[in-house]
Amino acid sequence: MEPGIDRLRQFVVQATRLADQGLLAEMPPASLLTAFQRLVSHDDWLPADCARPDPAHYQQYLLHCDPCERFCIVSFVWGPGQSTPVHDHTVWGYVGMLRGGEMSQRYARTAEGGYEALGEPVRLAPGEVEVLSPRDGDIHKVWNAQRRRASISVHMYGGNIGAIVRHVYDTRTGQARPFVSGYSSRQVPNLWDRSASVRAA
Amino acid sequence: MEPGIDRLRQFVVQATRLADQGLLAEMPPASLLTAFQRLVSHDDWLPADCARPDPAHYQQYLLHCDPCERFCIVSFVWGPGQSTPVHDHTVWGYVGMLRGGEMSQRYARTAEGGYEALGEPVRLAPGEVEVLSPRDGDIHKVWNAQRRRASISVHMYGGNIGAIVRHVYDTRTGQARPFVSGYSSRQVPNLWDRSASVRAA
Ligand SMILES: [Fe+3]
Ligand SMILES: [Fe+3]
Ligand SMILES: [Mg+2]
Repeated sequence: MEPGIDRLRQFVVQATRLADQGLLAEMPPASLLTAFQRLVSHDDWLPADCARPDPAHYQQYLLHCDPCERFCIVSFVWGPGQSTPVHDHTVWGYVGMLRGGEMSQRYARTAEGGYEALGEPVRLAPGEVEVLSPRDGDIHKVWNAQRRRASISVHMYGGNIGAIVRHVYDTRTGQARPFVSGYSSRQVPNLWDRSASVRAA
Repeated sequence: MEPGIDRLRQFVVQATRLADQGLLAEMPPASLLTAFQRLVSHDDWLPADCARPDPAHYQQYLLHCDPCERFCIVSFVWGPGQSTPVHDHTVWGYVGMLRGGEMSQRYARTAEGGYEALGEPVRLAPGEVEVLSPRDGDIHKVWNAQRRRASISVHMYGGNIGAIVRHVYDTRTGQARPFVSGYSSRQVPNLWDRSASVRAA
């Protein structure tokens, strides 16, 4: 196992404790954002199985889902030049760049009922975190900032994002079509094998 | 994913709710034993990755670990004729036979300080559950009842069993040697991809 997998386990435990206090039902406290930013500032923990790009489509590897589905953590792996449609999330989210880079363009509804780009595209660099708030507007299109290399971001959401009905948007007509993203793998990393450090203690 | 993986997910959710009420700190309520017995009475949910025997040694595939380590669920895969040493658990446990069969021999401490077999070996058949209680004596030796085929049992424990210091016993001298079992895989099944049934709803 990658030496740093404890990093992810400890973050999961911290998030679970906050969830148990009811603090992940809305945008979490600043302490969690700080911890998440620290997690994505070290690129020594993501298992290789959760870092593989696919030539045809970006990948969403579940890293952890809270058993009560109050939050989840996903690695989002971009092949070179891959992009998303314009979409929303319906729950709060953190997008933390781990490796490479992403471009993100926000969209807002127009008076005519379509959607238009709001501001300039923003680049996310390793160690940086973007916060998504449906209340403040989370509709966006995202793409790999690297044309010839894979990039990886780590996402945290206030729910089991792969099982949530959310939407892709036709920006011209404003039509929202439902979609459910699912996950790219039938397995998740084993965060719980602490046997080596227990034996060494 | 196997059609029945929801079975395991629903069991995990039920157990998590009981843990949240503090009811897994000691031997759980009868309702959980009933649900566990029902889980192991259907052999349609265990992923193939968690059912593979190894020619050299029995395998312990983590299926789920509670993030607060209040319980875990493991598939225990026996190659033909494989056995354990005499050992304990230090936490409560359920052993449910899923496929094939196991033989289990209990041991008790003698006046001289060694350990001797207590009663006859007991065979566990598919659908049957043995309850382990350290308080009542859980020291045993277990082996595959099948000499030429693999067998599989599903275990539930009141802790993260792979990270717990427990003991193997020299029955002649009574000496207890600490051991930590760890797990056989770096991955666990993804129980959380409900996307197909959400889309169908
Ligand atoms: Fe997004
Ligand atoms: Fe045992
Ligand atoms: Mg580092």
